[in-house]
Formats: sequence, structure tokens, C-alpha cells
Amino acid sequence: MEILSVNNPRVKQWKKYEKKKYRNQDQRFLVEEAHLIEEALQANVLETLLVLQGKEVTCNQGVECIEVSQQVLDKLSTHVSSVSMIGICKQLTHKAQSLDRIVYLDNIQDPGNVGTIIRTAYALGYDAIYMSDTSVDLYNEKVIRATQGALFHMPIIRGNLLEMMSIHQEHGVHVYATALDKQAKMLSSIAVSTPFALVFGNEGSGVCPEILAQANTKVMIEMKQFESLNVAVAAGICMYEFSH
Amino acid sequence: MEILSVNNPRVKQWKKYEKKKYRNQDQRFLVEEAHLIEEALQANVLETLLVLQGKEVTCNQGVECIEVSQQVLDKLSTHVSSVSMIGICKQLTHKAQSLDRIVYLDNIQDPGNVGTIIRTAYALGYDAIYMSDTSVDLYNEKVIRATQGALFHMPIIRGNLLEMMSIHQEHGVHVYATALDKQAKMLSSIAVSTPFALVFGNEGSGVCPEILAQANTKVMIEMKQFESLNVAVAAGICMYEFSH
Repeated sequence: MEILSVNNPRVKQWKKYEKKKYRNQDQRFLVEEAHLIEEALQANVLETLLVLQGKEVTCNQGVECIEVSQQVLDKLSTHVSSVSMIGICKQLTHKAQSLDRIVYLDNIQDPGNVGTIIRTAYALGYDAIYMSDTSVDLYNEKVIRATQGALFHMPIIRGNLLEMMSIHQEHGVHVYATALDKQAKMLSSIAVSTPFALVFGNEGSGVCPEILAQANTKVMIEMKQFESLNVAVAAGICMYEFSH
Repeated sequence: MEILSVNNPRVKQWKKYEKKKYRNQDQRFLVEEAHLIEEALQANVLETLLVLQGKEVTCNQGVECIEVSQQVLDKLSTHVSSVSMIGICKQLTHKAQSLDRIVYLDNIQDPGNVGTIIRTAYALGYDAIYMSDTSVDLYNEKVIRATQGALFHMPIIRGNLLEMMSIHQEHGVHVYATALDKQAKMLSSIAVSTPFALVFGNEGSGVCPEILAQANTKVMIEMKQFESLNVAVAAGICMYEFSH
């Protein structure tokens, strides 16, 4: 099959996936990097592969392969330089197998931060990530890129964080919220109680008051200077410290 | 004083500071965020302040204040949206007061990573940062922004990392290099020997072989999945762990 015109109705539909609203409506998203397309294929969510006309690609069973013009790829790509492949994927529906060690993201806005936290959680063997509806969208292109593919392996659940937290707490999950607060316990002094959830908050305002109030323990990273850390770095330090 | 034309020779000279070569030749750099300009002022490196014509600003003694047109600001700014102030600063020359806890950056290329590591090192009370000549330039606008001002407080020395490392080792500094290597020691098993230096390497290839060979100890962060971490996250985890 071949699509050469940028005015093709399917191209127009895919183009809409730049926006969160249409991605979620159709439960689809795009990936552009070759190694991420490979991971999408392994994870069984690659539905359609758009390949530059004339480029040789072995198309896997179950994946619709379409040859397209460079114009079509350029229209759909968010990259500055031209890409030669774009994958259209189904959104992920991994279920958490365990709730022993989980992470909550409360209203984190920078896509690089969210993606980097997902990457770290996966590398350190965390069980799942729960994201507030108010956080940047998981299928934002910059989030996907920063995860380096970890999002294809990690159960990531989006919803009302306060509600999800209540349910977890009823199941015995101890919630530790990071806070810059005199009543917070110093990270290195924490005797970790498992199962646990670690909460990381917005870049400017931190974890919201409602979640802080309902958390079991407030945690603070010891700092020499009265400064703050980048949230992805703070998350990395806490996730590592809670596991070792 | 007033400069309204984008063709003014001083404007043309400042414009060149987009490039590392001219920044280093003149030992100058630009900052755009109000809070960073404030930090530059505190650190005594703000030389000239360009302010949008008609905007009221109290200019501090010792700082040359120039009213400029929006066109001049737009020409010099790297931001998408318009700024109303730009500071021209002298490059920093902080000397390390102590070498107890230092960080080496070996060929790190992403400005966000370098800036974030500087921010973390400052917050955690490290003494100094030594950057290889091959790393992204310290005065790159994105590096400055990611430091959140920490670069104005932190001694940061650029040069030949292998040579600087030899001198430090002669002074008793124990060098720990991060590595994905079977012979590396697990981070949580390290009994830290002070004074020490922690080495972080290039995003793709890690710490270079010459530095790995000369380091005293190789360190690896324990990971559940055979994955890697973002270098700024890995640096945050190691810097925290080495201090607590």
C-alpha cells in the first residue's frame, strides 16, 4: 500500500495525534525513533508502520506496512531533521502485577522529567507508575523519547491520584511524599516500610496539599545549600535510596 | 545610554556570544532570565544590563545600564517569547576552596544534563566541578538555565580532565568512575574514601577508556533491568549516596 499525498484522510487523522485529545479519543500515538519503533513491535502495540518510499523494510506479521512520501513523514514528524519511518501504536494497557514499590507523579509538567522518571523506575525495577490526570500526557512525543523505551515495559496508570492513593492505602501501601517541609523526615533516616508508594510533585509547587495531607510520611532529601533539585534527579535519588 | 539599532557594533559583538568561540575569546556570556541576572549581580559578574526602552529598572552601581529596543533584545535572545532584559556577564573564575568532594564531567554533551548536574552538586554541597574540554560549553544558554543559577556559586574548572585528574590523585584524591562493567563495584557496597572525585561520562559511550584506566575504583549503580539511566539521574544518585 502507498500514501503519497499529505491530504490523504488517514494522514490527516494521524496528524491529529499531535494533540492529546485525539490520541486519547482513538487510543493511539506515534513514535519516530527506529529503536522505539522496535520496542513498540516487541510490546505488540505497533499497528501501522509508515516507511519512506523505496526504503527496504521487512514488515512483520500483524503490522500494516505503508509506503509514504517524504512529505507525509515530514508532515507527521515533530523532529527537525527528516525521519524515514513513523509507527502508529495502540496505547498501552499494562496492568501492575505487584504494588510493592510504586511511584506517583503529581502534576509534573515537563515531558523530559516525566520520561526520565519512567526510565529510572524501570531500570530500578519498580512495579508501576501512577500519574495524575493533571500531569503532562504520557504519549507526548518528548515523554516517549525521554523514557528511552521504558514506557513499553512499565505499567503506567493515569487517573485521579488522590482516589488511586486511597485505594492503595486501604491495601496497606505506605505513602511517602517528598516535601520541603520542617516536619519531613530526612531521606537517609527512613526505615522503609513495604509495600510503598513514593510521590513526586510539580516542578514549581511540589506535591499538592491534598496529597501531602493524606500521605503517611513526608520525606526530604538532605541538602547543604537551601536549594532545590530537579524533580527527575530527586526522584532518582529517592527511588534508589528506597531500594538499597 | 540608548541603543536602538540592531546594526550597532556592540549589538553585533554581543550577538557573537551565541558561539562558544567568541564567548571564550572575550570571556563573556549572556543571561536572559530575571532570576539569573539577579544571581549574576550578586556574584559580581554582571557587567552590562540591557533593558527594554521605557521599562523602569534601578541600575546597580558598577553595572552599565543601557536602554535598548525590543528589536535589539529579540536579536540577542535565544527564547521563543520576547524578553525585556539581557545581562552581559564576565565568565566566572571561582577557585575551589577544598577538594574533598569533587565531580568530573567527561565529554557530556547535553546542556540540560550538564546544567542539572551542576545544580545537584551545588545543592548537595560538593566543592567543585571539573569539566573536560570536550564537554558542552559551560556558558551555553541551556546549560546556564538548567543550573538554575548554581553556576554562579560553584567553582567550575574546564580543561584537560586526564591531566587535572593526575594532579588530584597526586594530592590523595581517590577517583571513582561510573562504569557498566562486570569488574565495577556496586554503589551500595562502596566504603567512601575522602577526598574523592566522582566521574560521569558521555551519554552514549560513558567514561572514556583512558580515564577509566587511571581511576582508582569503578562504580556501578545496581539495576534490575539491563537498562541505563540518564546521566544526570545517575550522577544525582551517586552524589547523594557518596554523601550519606
